[in-house]
Amino acid sequence: MTQANGVQKSLPSALPLVQKLSKDHDLVLKTFRLLIADLCQQFSGGHPGGAIGMAAIGVSLWKYAMRYAPHTPDFFNRDRFILSNGHTCLFQYSFLHLTGYKAMTLDQLKSYHSDRVDALCPGHPEIEHEGIEVTTGPLGQGIANAVGLAMATKNLAATYNRPGFDVVNNHTWCMIGDACLQEGVGLEAISLAGHFRLNNLTVIYDNNQITCDGSVDLTNTEDVNAKMRACGWDVIDVQDGCFDIEGIVRALEHARASTEKPTFINVRTVIGLDSAVAGTATAHGAAFGVNNVAEMKKLYGFNPEEHFVIGDTVRQFFQDLPARGEQWVQEWNQLVSDYTAQNPELGAEFQARVHGDLPSDWKQHIPTSFPEKATASRASSGLVFNPIAKEVKSFIVGTADLSPSVNMIWPGKVDFQHPDLRTTCNINGNYSGRYIHYGVREHAMAAISNGLAAYAPNTIVPVTSSFFMFYLYAAPAVRMGALQHLQIIHVATHDSIGMGEDGPTHQPIELAALYRAMPNLLYIRPGDSEETAGAWIAAIEAKKTPSIISTSRQGLPQLSQTHESAVVTLIGVGAELSFALEVAAKLKAQGIASRVISFPCQRLFEQQSLEYKRDVLRRHRGIPAVVIEPYAPNGWERYADAGICIKRFGHSLPGKAAYKFFGYEINALTTKVAGYLSQLKGDELLCHEFVEL
Amino acid sequence: MTQANGVQKSLPSALPLVQKLSKDHDLVLKTFRLLIADLCQQFSGGHPGGAIGMAAIGVSLWKYAMRYAPHTPDFFNRDRFILSNGHTCLFQYSFLHLTGYKAMTLDQLKSYHSDRVDALCPGHPEIEHEGIEVTTGPLGQGIANAVGLAMATKNLAATYNRPGFDVVNNHTWCMIGDACLQEGVGLEAISLAGHFRLNNLTVIYDNNQITCDGSVDLTNTEDVNAKMRACGWDVIDVQDGCFDIEGIVRALEHARASTEKPTFINVRTVIGLDSAVAGTATAHGAAFGVNNVAEMKKLYGFNPEEHFVIGDTVRQFFQDLPARGEQWVQEWNQLVSDYTAQNPELGAEFQARVHGDLPSDWKQHIPTSFPEKATASRASSGLVFNPIAKEVKSFIVGTADLSPSVNMIWPGKVDFQHPDLRTTCNINGNYSGRYIHYGVREHAMAAISNGLAAYAPNTIVPVTSSFFMFYLYAAPAVRMGALQHLQIIHVATHDSIGMGEDGPTHQPIELAALYRAMPNLLYIRPGDSEETAGAWIAAIEAKKTPSIISTSRQGLPQLSQTHESAVVTLIGVGAELSFALEVAAKLKAQGIASRVISFPCQRLFEQQSLEYKRDVLRRHRGIPAVVIEPYAPNGWERYADAGICIKRFGHSLPGKAAYKFFGYEINALTTKVAGYLSQLKGDELLCHEFVEL
Repeated sequence: MTQANGVQKSLPSALPLVQKLSKDHDLVLKTFRLLIADLCQQFSGGHPGGAIGMAAIGVSLWKYAMRYAPHTPDFFNRDRFILSNGHTCLFQYSFLHLTGYKAMTLDQLKSYHSDRVDALCPGHPEIEHEGIEVTTGPLGQGIANAVGLAMATKNLAATYNRPGFDVVNNHTWCMIGDACLQEGVGLEAISLAGHFRLNNLTVIYDNNQITCDGSVDLTNTEDVNAKMRACGWDVIDVQDGCFDIEGIVRALEHARASTEKPTFINVRTVIGLDSAVAGTATAHGAAFGVNNVAEMKKLYGFNPEEHFVIGDTVRQFFQDLPARGEQWVQEWNQLVSDYTAQNPELGAEFQARVHGDLPSDWKQHIPTSFPEKATASRASSGLVFNPIAKEVKSFIVGTADLSPSVNMIWPGKVDFQHPDLRTTCNINGNYSGRYIHYGVREHAMAAISNGLAAYAPNTIVPVTSSFFMFYLYAAPAVRMGALQHLQIIHVATHDSIGMGEDGPTHQPIELAALYRAMPNLLYIRPGDSEETAGAWIAAIEAKKTPSIISTSRQGLPQLSQTHESAVVTLIGVGAELSFALEVAAKLKAQGIASRVISFPCQRLFEQQSLEYKRDVLRRHRGIPAVVIEPYAPNGWERYADAGICIKRFGHSLPGKAAYKFFGYEINALTTKVAGYLSQLKGDELLCHEFVEL
Repeated sequence: MTQANGVQKSLPSALPLVQKLSKDHDLVLKTFRLLIADLCQQFSGGHPGGAIGMAAIGVSLWKYAMRYAPHTPDFFNRDRFILSNGHTCLFQYSFLHLTGYKAMTLDQLKSYHSDRVDALCPGHPEIEHEGIEVTTGPLGQGIANAVGLAMATKNLAATYNRPGFDVVNNHTWCMIGDACLQEGVGLEAISLAGHFRLNNLTVIYDNNQITCDGSVDLTNTEDVNAKMRACGWDVIDVQDGCFDIEGIVRALEHARASTEKPTFINVRTVIGLDSAVAGTATAHGAAFGVNNVAEMKKLYGFNPEEHFVIGDTVRQFFQDLPARGEQWVQEWNQLVSDYTAQNPELGAEFQARVHGDLPSDWKQHIPTSFPEKATASRASSGLVFNPIAKEVKSFIVGTADLSPSVNMIWPGKVDFQHPDLRTTCNINGNYSGRYIHYGVREHAMAAISNGLAAYAPNTIVPVTSSFFMFYLYAAPAVRMGALQHLQIIHVATHDSIGMGEDGPTHQPIELAALYRAMPNLLYIRPGDSEETAGAWIAAIEAKKTPSIISTSRQGLPQLSQTHESAVVTLIGVGAELSFALEVAAKLKAQGIASRVISFPCQRLFEQQSLEYKRDVLRRHRGIPAVVIEPYAPNGWERYADAGICIKRFGHSLPGKAAYKFFGYEINALTTKVAGYLSQLKGDELLCHEFVEL
C-alpha cells in the first residue's frame, strides 16, 4: 500500500464520503464563514477575509484529505499542515476547534485579539499550541518550513522504513497566499523543493488575487503556473475554490499520490466571500463591521442576533475525526511495535530518534587533543564536529554553496538527493543522505532547517553553514528558530576582518550586535580549538535553543590562559583572543600587570551568578576592562570600560593587512591600552564612560 | 531615432565592425584570459575562472554594445553595467583598464589581492571607484540594483524626455552567475522587472554550470529559461559564449532594441577555459598555480616567462573607445543645452536633478504645527513627509504591500507602472509615477532602492516603507546602502510591542541593536510629531547616509520637555518617550526629582561633543540613568546604568495589554525606578554594572 521512500500511495479515497456528505457542505461552509466574521467582530480586528475565502479548502483538508489525530496532536506520523499565510490563523484555529482538539475550546477560540495573556489564539499561529506545526507570520517562512518538514519525512523514511514497515510516510500540506510567491525565501524554497522532487509536499495556493495594497496585478503579473512547472512542480488548477469541495479533495488526493514531483494546487477563491467587502483589500485585515456581519447572516439565513453559532449538523459533520485519528495512532503504534520486534536494533534507534535522544556516547567522538599549531577555528570546528556528524544520524548538515570553505564534510558523507539524479545528472546521493547542498540560498537554508527541526523535537538537529556575513541574509529565519525554541546549529565561518580580501561586503562589523541581542540564541566565538569544542558541546546540549558557532578563516594560535592580579583586564574574543594575550605579554614587559578574560559568548556569561560575573570582571575593584574585537562595540559597554572596536565598514585587504589597517597589531594595541590607562589618570570622568580606543 | 519612454531604439549596429575586427578577436581573448590568470597568480588568490569564461561577453559589451565614456566615467546618460557576480571583479577591472579608464592603470590592476591600502581593485567592485556603478559581492544584490537603475532611467525619461529630446535613455546591463538565480532577492527583483516590463534592462547569464560546491545540478535543476519567460522576460540563448562574439553582440543589440520586456541572455561558457581546471569548481576561487598558468600560455603561443602581456594589437583594438565616449558626452551636452533652451523651466529642473539638488524651499512643505491630540508617529511621518513627496520629484516612494499601514500616500500620487497595465489590468500608473508597489518583497525593495539611488548621487532619493520587523528581511540591502553611502530613507512603522496583536513574529525586540551598530546609518525613533519632523529633516539632510525613521502604530501624546536638577535621569525613546515623562511625574509626587532625556538616535548623539554628551547624561555627577525601551538592552549600557528593557521575544496581545504584560505601565515602571534607587544605596557595587530592571 505504501512505498519505502515515504509516500503514502493509496490511502482509500475520500471521494465517496465527499459525495455522501455533500448535502451538509453548504451549511458547514456558511457556519464556518460566520464564525470567522463573528470572531473578528468581537474585538473589531483581525484578518477575516482570507480565512473565509479558504473555508472549502479547510473542509477538504481536515474532514477528508489529511491524516492526523486531534486527541494525539503530536502523533509522530501525522500529516503536517503549515499555514504559511499565518495572518489567516483563524482559519486554522477554527478547524482545530471543529475537529476536536481538546485545548481549542470555543471559549479559547474567542480569545482571538482579546487581552487574555494565556490565549491559544495569538495573531499568528504559534508552535507552542496544540495542532500548530510551526510559528508563521513573517511571509515566505512557512512554505520554506514545509519544504524542511517534507525533507524530514524523506530522510527518516529512507533511513528507517523497511519493506512492509513504512514507519514514516506522512504528507506535508502547506497553505499559502500571494505573498509566499513574492518573498525571496519562498522562491528559494520552491526551487529547492522542485530540485529534491519532494512528492510528499503539496502547496495549496489561496489565489484570491488580493493583497494589502489591492489587486495582485499592482505588483505581480507573472504566469505563476508556468513558473512552478519550470521549477519542477506539478500544477493542478481548481477553478471554484469557494464551493467545490469535491474538486479540491480530488486535487489533494492526486497530489498525495503524485509519484515524481511536489504539487502546486492553484485554487481560485474570493477573499471575504459573501461579505460587503468581498473581493477587495478591505476584507484582508479588518473586521467587517456589526451591520455587515448581520447582513451576511441574513444572506445565509442565520439569525443576525446570534453569534458564534455552530449547529448540531455541523458538530456531527466533524465528530468522527478524533476517533478516526486515534485509530491511525493505534495502527502506527502497532506497526512500530512489530517493526521493532523484527528489527530490534533499528527499531531502538528509531524510537530514540522519535524521542529526540542522542546516543549517550556522542561526546566520545570529540578528539581529546588538538594540533598545537595555529589552526583556523573553522578547521577546529570540523575536527570537533565531523566525527560526531559521521556517527550520529540526528545531524543533518547543510551549506549554502560553501563546502570548500566551511569544513563540514566528513569522510564518506552522502548527499541528500533524489536517487534518480545519479542517472540524469551524475549526482550521487539519496534521501537517507545527510549532507545538503542548499545552493546560494542562505535564507531558505535557515528556514528549511526550522522545518527539519520542527518535525519532532530534536529528532533531527539541522546544522547549517556559510560565511558569518551571510547569516544576515538568513537572519529572519534564524530568528524564527530562536522564537520557536528549535535546536539548530549554525556554523558561521570567516567571522572577522581577518577573512581578508573579500572586503567590506564580507566583513561582519555589526552583525554580532544583532545576534548577541536576539533572545534565545547563543552566539559563540571560540578562540582556539579547545574553545571550539566547548562551543559545540554548548550548542549540542542546548536542546531548545539555536546557536551560531562563529569561526575564523585564518589560523589561530592554541592558547593557555592565566588569571592574575592586574591593573587592567583585557577581554579577548574569538579570532582575536590571542591578540589580548599578546598585548598582555607586551604590557607586562612595560611593567603593567594585566589579566585576560576569554569571552566567547555574552549570553552564556549572563547566565552565570552575579558573584561569578563580578569575580570575573572585577570592575567594581576599580580595574578597568578593555575589549579587543574588530566588531561594532555596541553591547560591550556592559562588560568593558573601553573598546578597541570598529565603527566603520571594513576594507578589502589580505587578512593580516586588514588587521594592520585597522590597528590590530600587537604594538599598536598595546600602545592604545597603555594610553588609556594614562588617560584615565588625567581625566577621572572617563571612568564613567565607555571609551573607544 | 529614440523613444520618449527612455529606450534607445536604433543605435547603429556594431555588427559590421564586429565582422571587420573579427581577425583580432582570438588574440584579444587570449590576452585577456592570460591577464586574469597572471593577476590571480601573483598573490596566489582570487577568482580567475568566471572572468576567463566571460571574456567574449566582455569584449562584446565594452568594445561593441555598451555606450559609455572612459574619460568621463560619470557621464549622466551612460549605459550602466552591473557585475552582480562581483567575485569575478577582475573581469570588470581588466576591461576598465583596456578601455582606457584613467585611474585603472596596469599598476593599479596589479593591486588585486595586494596589501596596498589605496588599491582600486578590491576583492569585489566598489562604487567609490571609476567605472563601478554599484558595490557588489553579496549575491543577488547586483541584479536587484540593476532593476533599480533601469527603473531610474524609466522614471527620469518619462519625467523629462520631450519629443526630439531623449535626455535620458541609457540601457542597463547586468552580468550574473548562477547564484543570482538562486538568491531570493534576485528572484524577487526578476519578478518585479518582468511586471514593470523594463525593456531597458538586459541580464546576461554566465551559464557555466559551476558553483563553489561543484555542478549546479547539485542544487538547481529547474528550467531557467522557462522560469524567466513565466516572469515576463524575453529569453535569448547563446550557445558558444566563449568565442562567438558576433552571436553575443547580436543578442545584446536585440536586447537593447527589445520593445516589450526585459531580456535574459543565457550564455553558455566554460569556467577557467583552457586552464587545467577548466569546467570545474576548482577554477572558481583559487589561482591556477604557476605551472598551470605557464601551460596555458604555451597553449596560446605566449611566452610562459612573460606576465601581464598586452600587445600592441590588443591595445589598438580598444584605443578608439575614449574618443568615441567623449563624442557621446558632447552630443548629450549639446542635446541638454538645446533642450534647456526650448524648455527653460523643465531644463533647469532637470539639471538640478542631475546635480542632485533639492528645491531650496523643500522644508517649507513641512507643517509648522501638529495636532495636539495623541498621534501615531507613523501618522506624524505622513503629515511631515507626504507634502514634500508630493512636490519634490526627487523622492520616489515605495512600500512592501503595506500602503494602508505606513501612511506614505500623498493626494494625487501616481503609481510607477507600465502604462499599458491600464488597459490589461485596470491598473493606473505610468513611468513618471513615483509610488512603487513593491509587493511583499522587502529585500528587493531595499536592493532596488540602492539601484535607484546609485543612478547618480541624490538625483533620486528612494523612500521605502514596511513594518520595522520586516527590515530584517531587507537588512542585507539596507547594509549595502550604508556601505555605499547612498541616501535612502526607510520608514519603519509598528516599531514596538505597542503594535500589538500580531505578536512576537512582528515585535522587533532585538532589531534596533543591529541598526544602531550598523556603520553609516541613522536609526531614529522619534517620540512625537515634532521629533518626527526632526527625524525627517535629519534624514533628508544626510546626503550620504541612509536612515531608518522608526515609528509607532499606536497614538503617542505630544510632549513638552523640561530639564531640571534630579537624582535620576530617565532616558525615553520613541513610542515610549511619554512613559518616561509620566514616570517622572509620578516620581515627583513621591518626592524623587528626576529628569527626562529624549534619545531618538544614538548615532546623532554620538556625533556631539564630549562636553555636550556629558552635560546631557550627567552620569559623572553620580546621577544614575535609566532607559525605558521595550527592546533588547544591548548598547544602552553606554548611556544608562539601568534599563527597563526586554530580553525575550514578544507576545500577541493588544498594544496596551502587551505593554502591561511586559511591565510597561506607569505605576510598575515608577516602582522599578524607585526600587533601583533604593537598591543602589544597599549595594554600592551596582553602580559599576548595568542593571536590568
